[in-house]
Amino acid sequence: MRLTVAQLSESELLARIFPRLHAGTSTILGPGDDAAIIAAPDGRTVISIDTQVQDQDFRLRWPNGYATTGFDVGWKAAAQNLSDINAMGAEATAMVVSLTLPGTTPVSWVEDLADGLSAAIVALGAGACSVAGGDLSAGSELVVTVAVTGSLEGRDPVLRSGARPGDQIAVCGNLGVSAAGWALQESTIVPDRYTPAAAHAAELFNRPWPPLVAGPAGARAGATAMMDISDGLLRDAGRLAAASGTGLDLDAGVLRELATALEDTAAALGADSLEWVLTGGEDHGILSTFPAATTLPAGFIRIGSVVSAEANQPAVTISGQNLRSVITGAVGWDHFAV
Amino acid sequence: MRLTVAQLSESELLARIFPRLHAGTSTILGPGDDAAIIAAPDGRTVISIDTQVQDQDFRLRWPNGYATTGFDVGWKAAAQNLSDINAMGAEATAMVVSLTLPGTTPVSWVEDLADGLSAAIVALGAGACSVAGGDLSAGSELVVTVAVTGSLEGRDPVLRSGARPGDQIAVCGNLGVSAAGWALQESTIVPDRYTPAAAHAAELFNRPWPPLVAGPAGARAGATAMMDISDGLLRDAGRLAAASGTGLDLDAGVLRELATALEDTAAALGADSLEWVLTGGEDHGILSTFPAATTLPAGFIRIGSVVSAEANQPAVTISGQNLRSVITGAVGWDHFAV
Repeated sequence: MRLTVAQLSESELLARIFPRLHAGTSTILGPGDDAAIIAAPDGRTVISIDTQVQDQDFRLRWPNGYATTGFDVGWKAAAQNLSDINAMGAEATAMVVSLTLPGTTPVSWVEDLADGLSAAIVALGAGACSVAGGDLSAGSELVVTVAVTGSLEGRDPVLRSGARPGDQIAVCGNLGVSAAGWALQESTIVPDRYTPAAAHAAELFNRPWPPLVAGPAGARAGATAMMDISDGLLRDAGRLAAASGTGLDLDAGVLRELATALEDTAAALGADSLEWVLTGGEDHGILSTFPAATTLPAGFIRIGSVVSAEANQPAVTISGQNLRSVITGAVGWDHFAV
Repeated sequence: MRLTVAQLSESELLARIFPRLHAGTSTILGPGDDAAIIAAPDGRTVISIDTQVQDQDFRLRWPNGYATTGFDVGWKAAAQNLSDINAMGAEATAMVVSLTLPGTTPVSWVEDLADGLSAAIVALGAGACSVAGGDLSAGSELVVTVAVTGSLEGRDPVLRSGARPGDQIAVCGNLGVSAAGWALQESTIVPDRYTPAAAHAAELFNRPWPPLVAGPAGARAGATAMMDISDGLLRDAGRLAAASGTGLDLDAGVLRELATALEDTAAALGADSLEWVLTGGEDHGILSTFPAATTLPAGFIRIGSVVSAEANQPAVTISGQNLRSVITGAVGWDHFAV
C-alpha cells in the first residue's frame, strides 16, 4: 500500500516537501512564516501566475500508456512560469506554489513534484530562484498553481507592444516539438517504440525546456518586443501584432525548414509537421522583434518582418499571403484557418 | 438562461473581468503582458499564496440555505491573503489571481468574484494594492488561488520566532466570530431569522475583516512576533510558541470576556462561545507579542504573557494550567484537548 496524502497531517506533508525545494540566492526569508521575503534589488518585482489542472492540462495516464509523473508536473509548472519571467527580459527570483490534492494522491507523487520543480529551476539555469513558500489544499482533482517573481536587473521590461514596422521577427527555442510529443501520447504508439526523434519530442512535451538565457539576452540586444510562445506561434504572433498595432509577416521557407526535423514523427502519425510548428503550444520559446540592423543574439533565428497593419488584412501573414492560401498551396494543408 | 463561462472564449471572459479589477498605485505594469511589474521601493518583496477550494473552504449552498456569492469568495480570497502580508508588518502591493472554473459557472458569478476582490482591497484599507494579473483554467470544481505581494517600507519583518519570555501577548481583531458564522450556516437557522449578533457573525464569516492597520502599527510599536490567526487562537499560538522556543500563557478571564459577545448565538446553537474564541479560524486577526513595557497600539488587547518553555508542559497554557483542566472546570467544556 502506498502512503497517501490523506494519511498525513498538513505539517507532516510539508515536512516532507520543504527539504526538496530549491533555495536560491534571491530569498531573504524562505518558507515557514506568514509570507516569504524576496530580494528586489532594482526596486521592482516582475510577477506572473499559471495553473495546471488534471485532465485539462495533463492526463495522469495517456492513451499510449504514458503515466505523467509528479516530476513531470512539477517541472512543467516551473518551466511555464519561468518562461513568463524570461519573456519580460527578467531573471526569476522566487516561486510560491499552491497544490490542491485529492486525498488519494500518493505522498511519493507529491515529493516527485517538489523534486521536479527544483530540478527544472536548476537545469534551466534559474538557480537564483527559490521555492519560497506555498499552500496545500484538499480537492477532488489535482490543481498546481505557481506564482513566480523576477528581477529586471535595472533594465526596461520588453513588452508585447513594442514591435515597429521594419523590425525583424525572431524566435529562440523550439517550435512544434511539444505538439509532436502531445500527439504521440494521444496516439497508439507506445513509448517503447518511439524513434529517437519521437522520444525527444515526448521528453520536451512532458518537461519543456524554455531558453531562459534568451529573455535577458534579447533585452540587452535591444529587442523591441518579446513574448512567451505558450499557445502556438500563430496565435501568439497575433497577440503581439495586436498589442503593437502592426502586422507580422512570417517567412514560409524558414517555417518549412523548422518543420523538417518533425517530419518523420508527423508521417508516423499522419500529422502535419508544419501545423505543429505554426500552432503547437507549450514549447515556451520566445517570439521577439528587433530593429532590422540588430545582430540577433545567439540562439535566435529570423523568421520574418514586422509590417504595417493593413485594414482587411490578417495581422499575421506568411510570405505576404494569408494563411489559408499559402498553406493549401505549399503543403496541402487546408483544414486550418486563422 | 444565464450566460456561462463555457459560452465565452478566454479573451472574452478576461475582457469582462479586467475592468472590475482594482488598480492601485503600486503597479508599474498591470494585466495583459506575460507578467506584471510591481513597485518594491525598499528592494524587498513580501509574498504569500492561498487557495480556496469549493466544498473544502466554502460551500456554494449551506445547510441553512445561504448561497455563497462570487463576491463572498473574491472578498475572502483578498482578505486572507492581505492578512498574511499584514502579519509580517507589511503593506500589500499587488495580487495575481488564478481561477479554475467549471464550464457551468455563470459569468455573472465570476464578475461578482472580481468585484469582491476589488471591494475588499479598498474597504480593508489596502488601496495601494492592485489586482495585477491572473490566469483562467477549466476544471471540475471551483479553485481560487491568490498570490499577494507586499512592501515592508524599510522596516524589519515581524516573524513568528521573536517572542521572548516576559513579553506580553496581544491580539488585534476578532476571535471566534467567524466560527460562529460558520456554525450558523451549518445549522437549520435560516438567515432571515438571524439576530443582529448572528447576522454580524455570518457577515464576517463570508466577508472577513482583517485589521490591516494592525500589522504595520504593531511593527512600528516594536512587536517582537506576529502572525495571522487563520486556524484558531490555540493552534496558531502553538505555532508561534514553537517558532519562538517559548511557552505562551493566556489569561482565562480575558478570553471568557471576549466570548461574552458570542454567548447568545452559541446558546441558540447549543455551542460553546469560549470554544469558538479558542479554536475558531478565519477571523484573520493578529496574534502578537510585545516587550512588557510597551504601550500596545490602538486595537490591541493584552491576552497573556510569554513564558519559558518547560519540558513536559504544553506550549500553550491558560492561566498557568493546561487546557483540559481549566476548561472543564471553568465552563464545563471537556470535549477538547490540545
